[in-house]
Amino acid sequence: MTKISNSTVRRLSIYLRQLEDLMDEGVETVSSARLSELATVKATQLRKDLSFFGSFGVRGLGYSVPKLAARIKTILGLDREWRAVLFGAGSLGRALAGYKGFERHNIRIVGIMDNDPHKVGTTISGIMVHGMDQIGQLKEETGAQIAILAVPGPAARPLSEKIVAAGFFGIVNFAPVRLNLPKGMPLYSVDLSIAFEHVTYKLKETDLGDH
Amino acid sequence: MTKISNSTVRRLSIYLRQLEDLMDEGVETVSSARLSELATVKATQLRKDLSFFGSFGVRGLGYSVPKLAARIKTILGLDREWRAVLFGAGSLGRALAGYKGFERHNIRIVGIMDNDPHKVGTTISGIMVHGMDQIGQLKEETGAQIAILAVPGPAARPLSEKIVAAGFFGIVNFAPVRLNLPKGMPLYSVDLSIAFEHVTYKLKETDLGDH
Repeated sequence: MTKISNSTVRRLSIYLRQLEDLMDEGVETVSSARLSELATVKATQLRKDLSFFGSFGVRGLGYSVPKLAARIKTILGLDREWRAVLFGAGSLGRALAGYKGFERHNIRIVGIMDNDPHKVGTTISGIMVHGMDQIGQLKEETGAQIAILAVPGPAARPLSEKIVAAGFFGIVNFAPVRLNLPKGMPLYSVDLSIAFEHVTYKLKETDLGDH
Repeated sequence: MTKISNSTVRRLSIYLRQLEDLMDEGVETVSSARLSELATVKATQLRKDLSFFGSFGVRGLGYSVPKLAARIKTILGLDREWRAVLFGAGSLGRALAGYKGFERHNIRIVGIMDNDPHKVGTTISGIMVHGMDQIGQLKEETGAQIAILAVPGPAARPLSEKIVAAGFFGIVNFAPVRLNLPKGMPLYSVDLSIAFEHVTYKLKETDLGDH
Protein backbone atom coordinates (compact mmCIF):
# COMPACT_ATOMS: atom_id res chain seq x y z
CA MET A 1 0.00 0.00 0.00
CA THR A 2 1.21 3.50 -0.85
CA LYS A 3 2.20 5.63 2.11
CA ILE A 4 -0.54 8.08 2.98
CA SER A 5 -0.07 11.51 4.52
CA ASN A 6 -0.62 12.35 8.17
CA SER A 7 -3.50 14.62 7.26
CA THR A 8 -5.21 11.81 5.34
CA VAL A 9 -4.80 9.50 8.36
CA ARG A 10 -6.34 12.26 10.46
CA ARG A 11 -9.31 12.61 8.15
CA LEU A 12 -9.84 8.83 8.11
CA SER A 13 -10.09 8.99 11.93
CA ILE A 14 -12.70 11.71 11.61
CA TYR A 15 -14.71 9.75 9.00
CA LEU A 16 -14.57 6.70 11.27
CA ARG A 17 -15.89 8.66 14.25
CA GLN A 18 -18.80 9.94 12.16
CA LEU A 19 -19.53 6.46 10.79
CA GLU A 20 -19.58 5.06 14.33
CA ASP A 21 -22.03 7.77 15.40
CA LEU A 22 -24.21 6.86 12.41
CA MET A 23 -24.07 3.18 13.36
CA ASP A 24 -25.14 4.10 16.91
CA GLU A 25 -28.09 5.90 15.37
CA GLY A 26 -28.95 2.83 13.26
CA VAL A 27 -28.11 4.50 9.92
CA GLU A 28 -27.01 1.92 7.33
CA THR A 29 -26.02 3.95 4.27
CA VAL A 30 -24.63 7.44 3.86
CA SER A 31 -23.94 9.60 0.83
CA SER A 32 -20.52 11.14 0.35
CA ALA A 33 -22.19 14.57 0.54
CA ARG A 34 -23.71 13.81 3.97
CA LEU A 35 -20.58 12.15 5.35
CA SER A 36 -18.39 15.03 4.19
CA GLU A 37 -20.81 17.47 5.87
CA LEU A 38 -20.66 15.55 9.16
CA ALA A 39 -16.86 15.41 8.97
CA THR A 40 -16.68 19.10 7.92
CA VAL A 41 -14.50 18.12 4.97
CA LYS A 42 -15.14 18.98 1.32
CA ALA A 43 -17.00 16.23 -0.56
CA THR A 44 -14.29 16.17 -3.23
CA GLN A 45 -11.65 15.65 -0.52
CA LEU A 46 -13.60 12.79 1.05
CA ARG A 47 -14.08 11.04 -2.29
CA LYS A 48 -10.39 11.49 -3.07
CA ASP A 49 -9.34 10.09 0.32
CA LEU A 50 -11.57 7.05 0.00
CA SER A 51 -10.88 6.33 -3.68
CA PHE A 52 -7.25 5.98 -2.65
CA PHE A 53 -8.13 2.72 -0.91
CA GLY A 54 -10.32 1.27 -3.63
CA SER A 55 -13.97 1.57 -4.53
CA PHE A 56 -16.40 1.77 -1.62
CA GLY A 57 -19.50 3.58 -2.75
CA VAL A 58 -22.49 2.22 -4.67
CA ARG A 59 -23.70 4.73 -7.28
CA GLY A 60 -26.95 6.33 -6.16
CA LEU A 61 -26.92 4.56 -2.78
CA GLY A 62 -23.81 5.96 -1.16
CA TYR A 63 -21.61 4.05 1.23
CA SER A 64 -22.56 1.13 3.45
CA VAL A 65 -21.87 2.56 6.92
CA PRO A 66 -20.69 -0.67 8.63
CA LYS A 67 -18.60 -1.79 5.63
CA LEU A 68 -16.87 1.56 5.23
CA ALA A 69 -16.24 1.74 9.00
CA ALA A 70 -14.73 -1.75 9.00
CA ARG A 71 -12.52 -0.90 6.00
CA ILE A 72 -11.21 2.29 7.64
CA LYS A 73 -10.57 0.39 10.88
CA THR A 74 -8.42 -2.07 8.93
CA ILE A 75 -6.53 0.75 7.23
CA LEU A 76 -5.89 2.43 10.59
CA GLY A 77 -4.67 -0.83 12.11
CA LEU A 78 -7.67 -1.14 14.44
CA ASP A 79 -8.59 -4.66 13.30
CA ARG A 80 -6.14 -6.09 15.84
CA GLU A 81 -5.59 -5.52 19.54
CA TRP A 82 -2.97 -3.04 20.71
CA ARG A 83 -1.55 -3.04 24.21
CA ALA A 84 -0.58 0.21 25.90
CA VAL A 85 1.08 1.19 29.16
CA LEU A 86 -0.07 4.46 30.72
CA PHE A 87 2.64 6.53 32.41
CA GLY A 88 1.40 8.85 35.15
CA ALA A 89 -1.42 8.21 37.65
CA GLY A 90 -2.25 11.88 38.25
CA SER A 91 -5.58 13.44 37.32
CA LEU A 92 -4.96 13.19 33.57
CA GLY A 93 -3.74 9.59 33.88
CA ARG A 94 -6.85 8.71 35.87
CA ALA A 95 -9.04 10.34 33.25
CA LEU A 96 -7.31 8.37 30.47
CA ALA A 97 -7.50 5.11 32.44
CA GLY A 98 -11.29 5.49 32.47
CA TYR A 99 -11.59 6.61 28.82
CA LYS A 100 -14.22 4.46 27.09
CA GLY A 101 -12.90 5.04 23.58
CA PHE A 102 -9.89 2.74 24.00
CA GLU A 103 -11.92 -0.44 24.11
CA ARG A 104 -13.89 0.54 21.05
CA HIS A 105 -10.64 0.95 19.15
CA ASN A 106 -9.05 -2.25 20.36
CA ILE A 107 -6.53 -0.48 22.58
CA ARG A 108 -6.08 -2.22 25.92
CA ILE A 109 -4.26 -0.50 28.78
CA VAL A 110 -2.31 -3.34 30.37
CA GLY A 111 -0.65 -1.36 33.16
CA ILE A 112 -0.12 2.04 34.71
CA MET A 113 3.27 3.29 35.96
CA ASP A 114 3.85 5.99 38.55
CA ASN A 115 6.65 7.10 40.85
CA ASP A 116 4.44 7.68 43.88
CA PRO A 117 4.84 4.75 46.34
CA HIS A 118 1.35 5.47 47.69
CA LYS A 119 -0.15 4.74 44.28
CA VAL A 120 1.95 1.67 43.44
CA GLY A 121 -0.02 -1.51 44.13
CA THR A 122 -3.41 0.21 43.86
CA THR A 123 -5.71 -0.11 40.84
CA ILE A 124 -7.31 2.64 38.73
CA SER A 125 -10.34 1.65 36.64
CA GLY A 126 -9.28 -1.92 37.34
CA ILE A 127 -5.71 -1.44 36.05
CA MET A 128 -2.73 -2.09 38.36
CA VAL A 129 -0.27 0.73 39.14
CA HIS A 130 3.40 -0.31 39.03
CA GLY A 131 6.56 1.52 40.11
CA MET A 132 8.55 3.18 37.32
CA ASP A 133 11.48 0.82 38.03
CA GLN A 134 9.34 -2.04 36.68
CA ILE A 135 9.22 -0.59 33.17
CA GLY A 136 11.36 -3.27 31.51
CA GLN A 137 9.57 -6.09 33.27
CA LEU A 138 6.09 -4.74 32.49
CA LYS A 139 6.98 -4.24 28.81
CA GLU A 140 8.36 -7.79 28.69
CA GLU A 141 5.43 -9.44 30.42
CA THR A 142 2.64 -7.61 28.62
CA GLY A 143 4.16 -7.20 25.15
CA ALA A 144 2.81 -3.64 25.14
CA GLN A 145 3.67 -1.69 21.98
CA ILE A 146 2.37 1.78 22.87
CA ALA A 147 3.33 4.13 25.71
CA ILE A 148 0.88 6.84 26.79
CA LEU A 149 2.60 9.77 28.51
CA ALA A 150 0.47 11.60 31.05
CA VAL A 151 3.24 12.92 33.28
CA PRO A 152 4.13 16.57 34.07
CA GLY A 153 6.17 18.39 31.42
CA PRO A 154 9.62 18.24 33.04
CA ALA A 155 9.36 14.47 33.60
CA ALA A 156 8.37 13.66 30.03
CA ARG A 157 11.67 13.91 28.17
CA PRO A 158 13.81 11.73 30.50
CA LEU A 159 10.94 9.25 30.72
CA SER A 160 10.62 9.08 26.93
CA GLU A 161 14.25 7.93 26.77
CA LYS A 162 13.50 5.09 29.18
CA ILE A 163 10.42 4.18 27.14
CA VAL A 164 12.53 3.97 23.98
CA ALA A 165 15.16 1.92 25.80
CA ALA A 166 12.50 -0.45 27.14
CA GLY A 167 11.49 -1.24 23.55
CA PHE A 168 8.12 0.46 23.13
CA PHE A 169 7.30 1.15 19.48
CA GLY A 170 5.17 4.28 19.64
CA ILE A 171 4.18 7.09 22.01
CA VAL A 172 1.00 9.10 22.50
CA ASN A 173 2.16 12.18 24.40
CA PHE A 174 -0.06 14.37 26.57
CA ALA A 175 2.81 16.19 28.29
CA PRO A 176 3.21 19.76 27.01
CA VAL A 177 6.79 19.28 25.75
CA ARG A 178 8.45 18.35 22.48
CA LEU A 179 10.00 14.89 22.61
CA ASN A 180 13.10 13.89 20.70
CA LEU A 181 12.51 10.32 19.66
CA PRO A 182 14.56 8.17 17.30
CA LYS A 183 13.75 9.01 13.68
CA GLY A 184 10.68 7.16 12.42
CA MET A 185 9.29 6.24 15.85
CA PRO A 186 5.53 6.90 15.77
CA LEU A 187 4.60 9.82 18.01
CA TYR A 188 1.44 11.87 18.40
CA SER A 189 1.40 14.78 20.81
CA VAL A 190 -2.03 15.86 21.97
CA ASP A 191 -2.04 19.63 22.19
CA LEU A 192 -4.95 21.02 24.16
CA SER A 193 -3.94 24.55 23.18
CA ILE A 194 -5.05 23.89 19.60
CA ALA A 195 -8.62 23.28 20.76
CA PHE A 196 -8.79 26.46 22.79
CA GLU A 197 -7.04 28.62 20.24
CA HIS A 198 -9.46 27.48 17.55
CA VAL A 199 -12.29 28.81 19.71
CA THR A 200 -10.60 32.04 20.84
CA TYR A 201 -9.70 32.79 17.20
CA LYS A 202 -13.31 32.29 16.09
CA LEU A 203 -14.67 34.41 18.95
CA LYS A 204 -12.24 37.19 18.17
CA GLU A 205 -12.96 36.96 14.43
CA THR A 206 -16.70 37.33 14.98
CA ASP A 207 -16.37 39.79 17.88
CA LEU A 208 -18.70 37.46 19.77
CA GLY A 209 -16.65 37.57 22.92
CA ASP A 210 -17.20 41.30 23.26
CA HIS A 211 -20.95 41.22 23.71
CA MET B 1 -8.63 40.90 8.04
CA THR B 2 -9.39 38.15 5.54
CA LYS B 3 -10.94 35.01 6.98
CA ILE B 4 -8.37 32.27 7.39
CA SER B 5 -9.03 28.54 7.18
CA ASN B 6 -9.33 26.20 10.17
CA SER B 7 -6.20 24.37 9.11
CA THR B 8 -4.22 27.64 9.04
CA VAL B 9 -5.49 28.49 12.55
CA ARG B 10 -4.38 25.01 13.60
CA ARG B 11 -0.89 25.49 12.16
CA LEU B 12 -0.59 28.92 13.84
CA SER B 13 -1.26 27.17 17.17
CA ILE B 14 1.49 24.69 16.40
CA TYR B 15 3.97 27.44 15.43
CA LEU B 16 3.11 29.27 18.66
CA ARG B 17 3.75 26.17 20.77
CA GLN B 18 7.16 25.73 19.10
CA LEU B 19 8.02 29.42 19.54
CA GLU B 20 7.12 29.19 23.24
CA ASP B 21 9.38 26.16 23.63
CA LEU B 22 12.19 28.12 21.93
CA MET B 23 11.60 31.07 24.29
CA ASP B 24 11.80 28.69 27.26
CA GLU B 25 15.15 27.54 25.87
CA GLY B 26 16.32 31.17 25.53
CA VAL B 27 16.43 31.11 21.71
CA GLU B 28 15.86 34.59 20.24
CA THR B 29 15.76 34.07 16.48
CA VAL B 30 14.70 31.15 14.32
CA SER B 31 14.91 30.49 10.58
CA SER B 32 11.78 29.49 8.70
CA ALA B 33 13.54 26.22 7.84
CA ARG B 34 14.12 25.39 11.52
CA LEU B 35 10.67 26.48 12.66
CA SER B 36 9.00 24.47 9.90
CA GLU B 37 11.06 21.44 10.93
CA LEU B 38 10.00 21.81 14.59
CA ALA B 39 6.37 22.21 13.56
CA THR B 40 6.65 19.33 11.04
CA VAL B 41 5.20 21.55 8.34
CA LYS B 42 6.75 22.28 4.93
CA ALA B 43 8.86 25.47 4.91
CA THR B 44 6.90 26.78 1.92
CA GLN B 45 3.65 26.26 3.86
CA LEU B 46 5.00 28.09 6.91
CA ARG B 47 6.19 31.06 4.85
CA LYS B 48 2.84 31.16 3.07
CA ASP B 49 0.92 31.07 6.38
CA LEU B 50 2.98 33.84 7.91
CA SER B 51 3.17 36.08 4.82
CA PHE B 52 -0.61 36.14 4.98
CA PHE B 53 -0.37 38.32 8.09
CA GLY B 54 2.35 40.66 6.86
CA SER B 55 6.11 40.56 6.83
CA PHE B 56 7.77 39.03 9.88
CA GLY B 57 11.17 37.71 8.89
CA VAL B 58 14.44 39.58 8.52
CA ARG B 59 16.39 38.33 5.50
CA GLY B 60 19.35 36.22 6.58
CA LEU B 61 18.38 36.39 10.27
CA GLY B 62 15.05 34.64 10.32
CA TYR B 63 12.24 35.48 12.70
CA SER B 64 12.44 37.15 16.10
CA VAL B 65 11.02 34.44 18.37
CA PRO B 66 9.28 36.72 20.92
CA LYS B 67 7.93 39.10 18.25
CA LEU B 68 6.53 36.34 16.08
CA ALA B 69 5.02 34.62 19.15
CA ALA B 70 3.37 37.88 20.24
CA ARG B 71 2.01 38.47 16.72
CA ILE B 72 0.52 34.96 16.50
CA LYS B 73 -1.01 35.38 19.97
CA THR B 74 -2.73 38.53 18.77
CA ILE B 75 -4.01 36.79 15.64
CA LEU B 76 -5.36 33.89 17.72
CA GLY B 77 -7.09 36.27 20.12
CA LEU B 78 -4.78 35.42 23.02
CA ASP B 79 -3.80 39.05 23.72
CA ARG B 80 -6.88 39.42 25.94
CA GLU B 81 -8.29 37.39 28.79
CA TRP B 82 -10.98 34.79 28.15
CA ARG B 83 -13.21 33.41 30.88
CA ALA B 84 -14.38 29.82 30.74
CA VAL B 85 -16.73 27.65 32.77
CA LEU B 86 -15.83 23.97 33.06
CA PHE B 87 -18.75 21.54 32.99
CA GLY B 88 -18.09 18.22 34.72
CA ALA B 89 -16.01 17.59 37.85
CA GLY B 90 -15.15 13.97 37.05
CA SER B 91 -11.62 12.76 36.38
CA LEU B 92 -11.31 14.61 33.06
CA GLY B 93 -12.76 17.79 34.56
CA ARG B 94 -10.28 17.60 37.44
CA ALA B 95 -7.43 17.09 34.98
CA LEU B 96 -8.54 20.13 32.96
CA ALA B 97 -9.01 22.25 36.10
CA GLY B 98 -5.33 21.69 36.88
CA TYR B 99 -4.10 22.19 33.30
CA LYS B 100 -1.24 24.70 33.29
CA GLY B 101 -1.64 25.73 29.68
CA PHE B 102 -4.77 27.80 30.29
CA GLU B 103 -3.00 30.51 32.20
CA ARG B 104 -0.31 30.77 29.57
CA HIS B 105 -2.96 31.40 26.96
CA ASN B 106 -4.97 33.88 28.99
CA ILE B 107 -7.85 31.49 29.58
CA ARG B 108 -9.20 31.69 33.13
CA ILE B 109 -11.55 29.05 34.46
CA VAL B 110 -13.99 31.05 36.56
CA GLY B 111 -16.18 28.19 37.76
CA ILE B 112 -16.90 24.48 37.58
CA MET B 113 -20.41 23.01 37.32
CA ASP B 114 -21.47 19.51 38.32
CA ASN B 115 -24.68 17.67 39.17
CA ASP B 116 -23.23 15.76 42.11
CA PRO B 117 -24.39 17.41 45.38
CA HIS B 118 -21.29 16.01 47.12
CA LYS B 119 -19.05 18.03 44.81
CA VAL B 120 -21.05 21.27 44.85
CA GLY B 121 -19.48 23.75 47.26
CA THR B 122 -16.03 22.12 47.14
CA THR B 123 -13.10 23.54 45.19
CA ILE B 124 -10.89 21.85 42.59
CA SER B 125 -7.50 23.46 41.92
CA GLY B 126 -8.87 26.47 43.77
CA ILE B 127 -12.00 26.77 41.58
CA MET B 128 -15.47 26.55 43.14
CA VAL B 129 -17.88 23.81 42.05
CA HIS B 130 -21.48 25.00 41.49
CA GLY B 131 -24.69 23.05 40.90
CA MET B 132 -25.85 22.84 37.27
CA ASP B 133 -28.99 24.83 38.12
CA GLN B 134 -26.74 27.87 38.68
CA ILE B 135 -25.69 28.02 35.01
CA GLY B 136 -27.50 31.28 34.18
CA GLN B 137 -26.36 33.00 37.35
CA LEU B 138 -22.73 31.92 36.94
CA LYS B 139 -22.66 33.05 33.30
CA GLU B 140 -24.16 36.38 34.34
CA GLU B 141 -21.84 36.99 37.27
CA THR B 142 -18.57 35.94 35.61
CA GLY B 143 -19.19 37.12 32.04
CA ALA B 144 -17.69 33.82 30.86
CA GLN B 145 -17.64 33.39 27.08
CA ILE B 146 -16.40 29.81 26.71
CA ALA B 147 -17.90 26.55 27.98
CA ILE B 148 -15.64 23.52 28.39
CA LEU B 149 -17.58 20.24 28.24
CA ALA B 150 -16.03 17.39 30.23
CA VAL B 151 -19.19 15.42 30.94
CA PRO B 152 -20.05 11.84 29.88
CA GLY B 153 -21.26 11.40 26.30
CA PRO B 154 -25.02 11.05 26.92
CA ALA B 155 -25.10 14.23 29.05
CA ALA B 156 -23.32 16.39 26.51
CA ARG B 157 -26.06 17.12 23.98
CA PRO B 158 -28.81 18.24 26.39
CA LEU B 159 -26.22 20.23 28.34
CA SER B 160 -24.99 21.96 25.18
CA GLU B 161 -28.53 23.26 24.63
CA LYS B 162 -28.55 24.78 28.11
CA ILE B 163 -25.14 26.30 27.46
CA VAL B 164 -26.39 27.94 24.26
CA ALA B 165 -29.52 29.17 26.07
CA ALA B 166 -27.40 30.63 28.88
CA GLY B 167 -25.57 32.78 26.34
CA PHE B 168 -22.10 31.23 26.10
CA PHE B 169 -20.37 32.09 22.81
CA GLY B 170 -18.17 29.05 22.16
CA ILE B 171 -17.66 25.45 23.30
CA VAL B 172 -14.58 23.26 23.65
CA ASN B 173 -16.02 19.75 23.75
CA PHE B 174 -14.26 16.74 25.27
CA ALA B 175 -17.36 14.52 25.33
CA PRO B 176 -17.24 11.86 22.59
CA VAL B 177 -20.42 13.00 20.83
CA ARG B 178 -21.28 15.30 17.95
CA LEU B 179 -23.00 18.47 19.13
CA ASN B 180 -25.60 20.35 17.10
CA LEU B 181 -24.96 24.00 17.84
CA PRO B 182 -26.50 27.06 16.19
CA LYS B 183 -24.76 27.78 12.87
CA GLY B 184 -21.59 29.80 13.31
CA MET B 185 -21.15 29.11 17.03
CA PRO B 186 -17.45 28.33 17.58
CA LEU B 187 -16.92 24.68 18.55
CA TYR B 188 -13.86 22.49 18.80
CA SER B 189 -14.25 18.84 19.69
CA VAL B 190 -11.14 17.20 21.10
CA ASP B 191 -10.99 13.69 19.71
CA LEU B 192 -8.56 11.44 21.56
CA SER B 193 -9.12 8.71 18.97
CA ILE B 194 -7.21 10.73 16.39
CA ALA B 195 -4.05 10.58 18.51
CA PHE B 196 -4.21 6.86 19.00
CA GLU B 197 -5.17 6.08 15.42
CA HIS B 198 -2.22 8.10 14.16
CA VAL B 199 0.06 5.83 16.17
CA THR B 200 -1.69 2.52 15.38
CA TYR B 201 -1.62 3.41 11.67
CA LYS B 202 2.11 4.13 11.79
CA LEU B 203 2.83 0.96 13.74
CA LYS B 204 0.83 -1.12 11.31
CA GLU B 205 2.44 0.60 8.31
CA THR B 206 5.95 -0.18 9.53
CA ASP B 207 5.06 -3.59 10.98
CA LEU B 208 6.71 -2.37 14.16
CA GLY B 209 3.96 -3.71 16.40
CA ASP B 210 4.65 -7.24 15.25
CA HIS B 211 8.20 -7.54 16.55
